[in-house]
Amino acid sequence: MRVLNTFAAVRGETENTSVALVPTMGYLHDGHVSLVGVAREAADTVVMSLFVNPLQFNEPADLERYPRDLVRDSEIADVAGVDVLFAPSMSEMYPTPPRTLVRVAGVADGMEGARRPGHFEGVATVVAKLFAGIRPDVAVFGRKDAQQLAVVRRMSTDLSFPVEIVGASTVRSLDGLAVSSRNVFLSEPDRVAALGLSSGLFAAAEAAAEGERTAARLESVVASRVLAAGGEVEYVTLADAHEAEPIGTLDREAFLAVAARVGDVRLIDNVVLWPDGSSDTGVRLDEPSILRRS
Amino acid sequence: MRVLNTFAAVRGETENTSVALVPTMGYLHDGHVSLVGVAREAADTVVMSLFVNPLQFNEPADLERYPRDLVRDSEIADVAGVDVLFAPSMSEMYPTPPRTLVRVAGVADGMEGARRPGHFEGVATVVAKLFAGIRPDVAVFGRKDAQQLAVVRRMSTDLSFPVEIVGASTVRSLDGLAVSSRNVFLSEPDRVAALGLSSGLFAAAEAAAEGERTAARLESVVASRVLAAGGEVEYVTLADAHEAEPIGTLDREAFLAVAARVGDVRLIDNVVLWPDGSSDTGVRLDEPSILRRS
Repeated sequence: MRVLNTFAAVRGETENTSVALVPTMGYLHDGHVSLVGVAREAADTVVMSLFVNPLQFNEPADLERYPRDLVRDSEIADVAGVDVLFAPSMSEMYPTPPRTLVRVAGVADGMEGARRPGHFEGVATVVAKLFAGIRPDVAVFGRKDAQQLAVVRRMSTDLSFPVEIVGASTVRSLDGLAVSSRNVFLSEPDRVAALGLSSGLFAAAEAAAEGERTAARLESVVASRVLAAGGEVEYVTLADAHEAEPIGTLDREAFLAVAARVGDVRLIDNVVLWPDGSSDTGVRLDEPSILRRS
Repeated sequence: MRVLNTFAAVRGETENTSVALVPTMGYLHDGHVSLVGVAREAADTVVMSLFVNPLQFNEPADLERYPRDLVRDSEIADVAGVDVLFAPSMSEMYPTPPRTLVRVAGVADGMEGARRPGHFEGVATVVAKLFAGIRPDVAVFGRKDAQQLAVVRRMSTDLSFPVEIVGASTVRSLDGLAVSSRNVFLSEPDRVAALGLSSGLFAAAEAAAEGERTAARLESVVASRVLAAGGEVEYVTLADAHEAEPIGTLDREAFLAVAARVGDVRLIDNVVLWPDGSSDTGVRLDEPSILRRS
């Protein structure tokens, strides 16, 4: 694996090969490892970018405490099968204070967009930058951030980037918790309480499999589990998978998304639901991961 | 010359060559021909895009009456030396109603940006789209639209597009009038009145050559000539060439820009000024152009 710090070096290294990009903010976990696996199937060369993007943090404190460990990340990326790790400096990414923002109307406005002002503009801008500077053929994003996936898809289509956007299933611990860089901040009791999100989503997916199509009822299944486990619900929303706008009935591809606070940690999770009652609830880690083996 | 209608076809046609892009809205004139000449020097393959971009028209009536003539444009582009004419349909450019806008703060806010709300967002968005979909090495823009050039430069840098942005000198008729697609709307008397803009700018450039550095005095030279000729001044501004923000003293690369109404036609023009008193006032057509010969 090569570690490169400039866009030009990455383009030079990947000329004349097909490229699958896995954008990350580092502090890699099994979710990222899974994205690399999907990327490996999709192209000859896997490029992982690793940049904690200040533009997408609406709270300075959240940016400040976001975990960083380049040595550990390099080891994990290498074992996972990354060919090129792009770890740009702040000055490579922003040689001058950036004045350009990419805004996606509609798709970015509800749910996370409403609660984290500027967040999706930061995401859309940095992803546009990675697409412009690296010129990948494919880019892989986790379905855990379902609204982000919808925003990125729309941005890429609207700006005519010739990049295939692939969504990869959410990776979960054996107990169901969706893996996230923020999980390290959970105390032991909060981690148990956090299972209210995943168990609520699984219960809703079962209800959908048994014929439930009404958004309000699917949403209340999730909300009641989160509350019962001790979490504080911010929202539970059944949303169109592409428009990321609330829908009243499960009559198209959709995701059922939840955001909740558990202790002082804000968590999000979702399941993808189809109108025939099928679902993507994510994949469980059924064996020690690369991370725990290393 | 090949005429192509999709981004994919243009990328296929230009693989493995260096590409210089000349973005236009068609109705080609000697200014565009000059841009093609600059592009020819810069890369192996010259791609001209031709698309009347609805996003950048703040007034529907202006979009409606914008002149269009693809047959004439194809002939001129071919003779001028274009290799690939990219003339996309509306559905290729906007398969779904676009929700993504690229906004450049600061650079796009004054002068034209203040008077044409949304105009530069439309420009920045469509140019980002052309850069993303065509992947040129070089892109050539006229200095006549000095603020647009600054906006495009900033957008391209901020989004890490590996595109060299080249500014080409303004092309003028023998009498000094900057060529523009909108000149066809000038009546004969209005065309004479329109010369107030260029003669004012030339007088200001001479004043700068003789040592004048104060913005207010350079600006008043222009305003008084426009008024004397019968035009209605919207603004005259000495602006930093890169930030496109007003400056009080000619102490860096700058442009002196004027916008005025002559009859019912809105015209803009500018000269580039440097602090040593040198200038780029554009180039005069000293022989019948391709257009008049054809």
